[in-house]
Amino acid sequence: MNFLSSQISHNLNSIPAWKNLKKHAENFSRPDKHLKYLIKENSRLEKFSLTCNGLFYDFSRQRVDEKAMSLLFELAEARKLKEQFISMVNGEKINISENRAALHTASRNFSGTSICIDEKDVMPEIIKTRENIREFVSKVHNGKITGSTGKPFKHVVVIGIGGSYLGTKFVSCALKAFADKNIEIHFLSNVDIHNFGNIVSAIEPESTLWIVVSKSYTTTETVANANLAISFMKEKGLEFSKHFVTVTSKGSPGDDPANPVLSAFHMFDFIGGRYSVTSAVGGVPLGLYLGYEKFERFLKGAEEMDIHAKNSPCGKNIPLIAALISIWNNNFLGYQTQAIIPYASPLRKLALHIQQLNMESNGKSVTQEGHFLDEPAGPIIFGESGTNAQHSFFQLAHQGRPFPIEFIGVIRPQYDQYNYKSKGVTNHQELWANLISQPTALAEGKEDKNKAKYFSGNRPSSTILINDLSPESVGRLLSFYEAKTVFEAFIWGTNPFDQFGVELGKKLASNIRNEIALKNEQKDHRFEHMDNITKFYLDTIFSGKLIRPRS
Amino acid sequence: MNFLSSQISHNLNSIPAWKNLKKHAENFSRPDKHLKYLIKENSRLEKFSLTCNGLFYDFSRQRVDEKAMSLLFELAEARKLKEQFISMVNGEKINISENRAALHTASRNFSGTSICIDEKDVMPEIIKTRENIREFVSKVHNGKITGSTGKPFKHVVVIGIGGSYLGTKFVSCALKAFADKNIEIHFLSNVDIHNFGNIVSAIEPESTLWIVVSKSYTTTETVANANLAISFMKEKGLEFSKHFVTVTSKGSPGDDPANPVLSAFHMFDFIGGRYSVTSAVGGVPLGLYLGYEKFERFLKGAEEMDIHAKNSPCGKNIPLIAALISIWNNNFLGYQTQAIIPYASPLRKLALHIQQLNMESNGKSVTQEGHFLDEPAGPIIFGESGTNAQHSFFQLAHQGRPFPIEFIGVIRPQYDQYNYKSKGVTNHQELWANLISQPTALAEGKEDKNKAKYFSGNRPSSTILINDLSPESVGRLLSFYEAKTVFEAFIWGTNPFDQFGVELGKKLASNIRNEIALKNEQKDHRFEHMDNITKFYLDTIFSGKLIRPRS
Repeated sequence: MNFLSSQISHNLNSIPAWKNLKKHAENFSRPDKHLKYLIKENSRLEKFSLTCNGLFYDFSRQRVDEKAMSLLFELAEARKLKEQFISMVNGEKINISENRAALHTASRNFSGTSICIDEKDVMPEIIKTRENIREFVSKVHNGKITGSTGKPFKHVVVIGIGGSYLGTKFVSCALKAFADKNIEIHFLSNVDIHNFGNIVSAIEPESTLWIVVSKSYTTTETVANANLAISFMKEKGLEFSKHFVTVTSKGSPGDDPANPVLSAFHMFDFIGGRYSVTSAVGGVPLGLYLGYEKFERFLKGAEEMDIHAKNSPCGKNIPLIAALISIWNNNFLGYQTQAIIPYASPLRKLALHIQQLNMESNGKSVTQEGHFLDEPAGPIIFGESGTNAQHSFFQLAHQGRPFPIEFIGVIRPQYDQYNYKSKGVTNHQELWANLISQPTALAEGKEDKNKAKYFSGNRPSSTILINDLSPESVGRLLSFYEAKTVFEAFIWGTNPFDQFGVELGKKLASNIRNEIALKNEQKDHRFEHMDNITKFYLDTIFSGKLIRPRS
Repeated sequence: MNFLSSQISHNLNSIPAWKNLKKHAENFSRPDKHLKYLIKENSRLEKFSLTCNGLFYDFSRQRVDEKAMSLLFELAEARKLKEQFISMVNGEKINISENRAALHTASRNFSGTSICIDEKDVMPEIIKTRENIREFVSKVHNGKITGSTGKPFKHVVVIGIGGSYLGTKFVSCALKAFADKNIEIHFLSNVDIHNFGNIVSAIEPESTLWIVVSKSYTTTETVANANLAISFMKEKGLEFSKHFVTVTSKGSPGDDPANPVLSAFHMFDFIGGRYSVTSAVGGVPLGLYLGYEKFERFLKGAEEMDIHAKNSPCGKNIPLIAALISIWNNNFLGYQTQAIIPYASPLRKLALHIQQLNMESNGKSVTQEGHFLDEPAGPIIFGESGTNAQHSFFQLAHQGRPFPIEFIGVIRPQYDQYNYKSKGVTNHQELWANLISQPTALAEGKEDKNKAKYFSGNRPSSTILINDLSPESVGRLLSFYEAKTVFEAFIWGTNPFDQFGVELGKKLASNIRNEIALKNEQKDHRFEHMDNITKFYLDTIFSGKLIRPRS
């Protein structure tokens, strides 16, 4: 237990603001607290929105009133959210269960100040890694580093899963319009052989660079795929060490001179996988895909939002307020699910990244001090881009079980050369007509005598606006969600940096893998000592077709 | 109200089985009903699984016992599920609110029998449309139909959204390994200009065929994108009518000789968008992409499952049992969310399709007869392929708020040439080691004195197995989910074929669009009569950058 957490109660119910919020939330079942009235209050938008650093956050269509916000700010004070955040960015070991700091913010620190863990400054190593990336990337782009047959690299395949994959995928998709280096990017995440088969049929081996991303370099999926890639390159007669780089911890099996690669870039134990896109994990592939300068612009956008989250008072702090709203919806109004709906196709992978970031960070039931929460912490997060979502699951959003939504709008699109108008508006304006209408429709609802056409309304949403899809804006958006996620955990008192929940499945898979390996070696091996259900599935995979279970 | 629905009570609480299920569900909070004990019961798998028509359905890891199943079958009888399904496939107008039949099953009827609506056989038109598709597709493949400059078609762009898009996207992704016609498929769904920009930078206009899919041919997004495509082709100096086909209702603006196209394929009002992938909606693009024969194999797989759903008794009926399990989880055990996790990359778009299919069908709060349900009907559905999901949100699945999962496994992969082994197993076997382990880990949990490493277990899942990813298997899977979806609605008494919940947003968007169009025409138009929040967003889009709200 660190100093700060010892000062914070592990029992949420003992906090006056928490109890008062529970009580105040009961008022929101009253008809006069319906959103259709709340949104018509004087200065609603001015009071319930914030603009800062190129990001606008509108929570006027959330089911909150001034009293709710004031109690939420009391909760923020009681939980020392700002202090916890500062202690995080200062390098204290707030990841208690793993006795580590959580310094993803250091990976985009350009302030020149040092950041110490146990009195050792981490910035020199971070800056050195950034420099290594800049140099390597530039040599690839100017043809000084090529594949083993001298061909320039045109395909980059990122081998990595989870945190070594989703952030980079989101950013590369968001910034595709900036990719002018004649390099295509591919992602080999799943151990599913279909993933590998699809990728090798899309690349040209001679001009392919594989980037293997794994902190421990023992992630099963990643190692299996890296092995496949190596054997594939060998089969093609290519010197694979000239086609591979690794992003991994210093001294891991991926950073071993006995296994030579073009270059090994370092990851640090103080940056968790799901928070690592601003480290070498994102830096190497995004630098290659976009150019290093654009990656650095992305980092600088993220840094701006970090500074905002660290320095702004509670009432002006966008990610902090977004976290409070999330807690309000989850713990006080009882919504178990949240959707993220960007009205911008390039952000279509955002929800998948935040799904991991938030659900792996906050899908917990136990506090840092080892006390069970009254109810599990984080919500389930899903999403789709708009207007696509309107033609998919918005029927349920309007007339089924309600869930809060985060809408995202982009003011200036990346493409402005196609301005043909339908019904008097451009496509981008049509997109905005929908972005503007949906939160209103969800909030207001509509009376109708025909119950099939009745809309209950009172369905909460926030709207986030950014100016454009520049690297800086995408960096801000990423950092906003990272800060929001950790603020949520700081309220619950949970640890957003560990993930013990994934261990049990891994352990069981390891047992099953051993059984399969044994059977591969010894054709007469039987699975008699396994439980009936497991045995059935093992028999099925070895029989190669559906069989019937037997007693 | 039709004859059958008049016989079914609109009040679920008045049905003895419903009341008894509510009571029986209370037992499942008892420690001895924990899944770790249930799965160890004698013959658990034999009793709680079914194999039929190349699909295996295992619900042994669901929180059910024999009594629960027997009460659920009583509920199925009380709700006349089988009779409702038969009445659907026989062409009765079970879509009461729109006074229509729901005959998606007719689009894959190869039995030779006629199916009548109001005594008119619909099969001749369906068969004729299939023949038109077969002929057209074959002429494209053999070069008899080419683009306006004589180049063969190599790119197909499907312009359509929602039901005109998601099913075809799912199937084309699942069957990519079968696409041997040298044709790439693209989807232009979103009105977002980024979508259009990305596609036109990936195609070669001379060899591009655009397929515009819209039943009414008035869908805003689709019409806007079709207009853009037409103006783009004209700019390239190409005769656009030689590059366009439509899939639309007879007599719609897309089937008007005044707007000539290469061919117009018909949609019927008795097949809803989200159920339409086995009609011309999927037939034209999938026929071009895969060849017509493979599309027909896909239809025949779907037909097999339709016949199973129609003819099998309740206790042997896979989609019916899956629907009962879904209702049990939703209404009796209180799970609001369900996940679909296929351990097969080619099925990675399945969850997005089922999200639409199920949430748009069942996201309702009102019965066919216009009575409000006690609680909203359908669950929220999301998903991701495994093992990717394990490295994303499975932390929450194991230690956070529980939700039921449908796992899907494929016995034989599409790629078998990459057999390199890691840790003694192939990648496909590694995938299965995980597919086998996760349901067990979720069900059993694990004790640990360290609460951060404690797994409560008792988290339900089903596992579906199919032999392969052949067109037939994918057809069966699709039809399984369609039948499951309508069976669920038949239990609640809701209408799975209408979607009035999307209308309010459309109407508001139309007002906003008019305002924007007016401002485009008259620069000095102000939005003074709009509410403050709407006005702010309109001012923002016209100012082209973030502004601050003012009172």
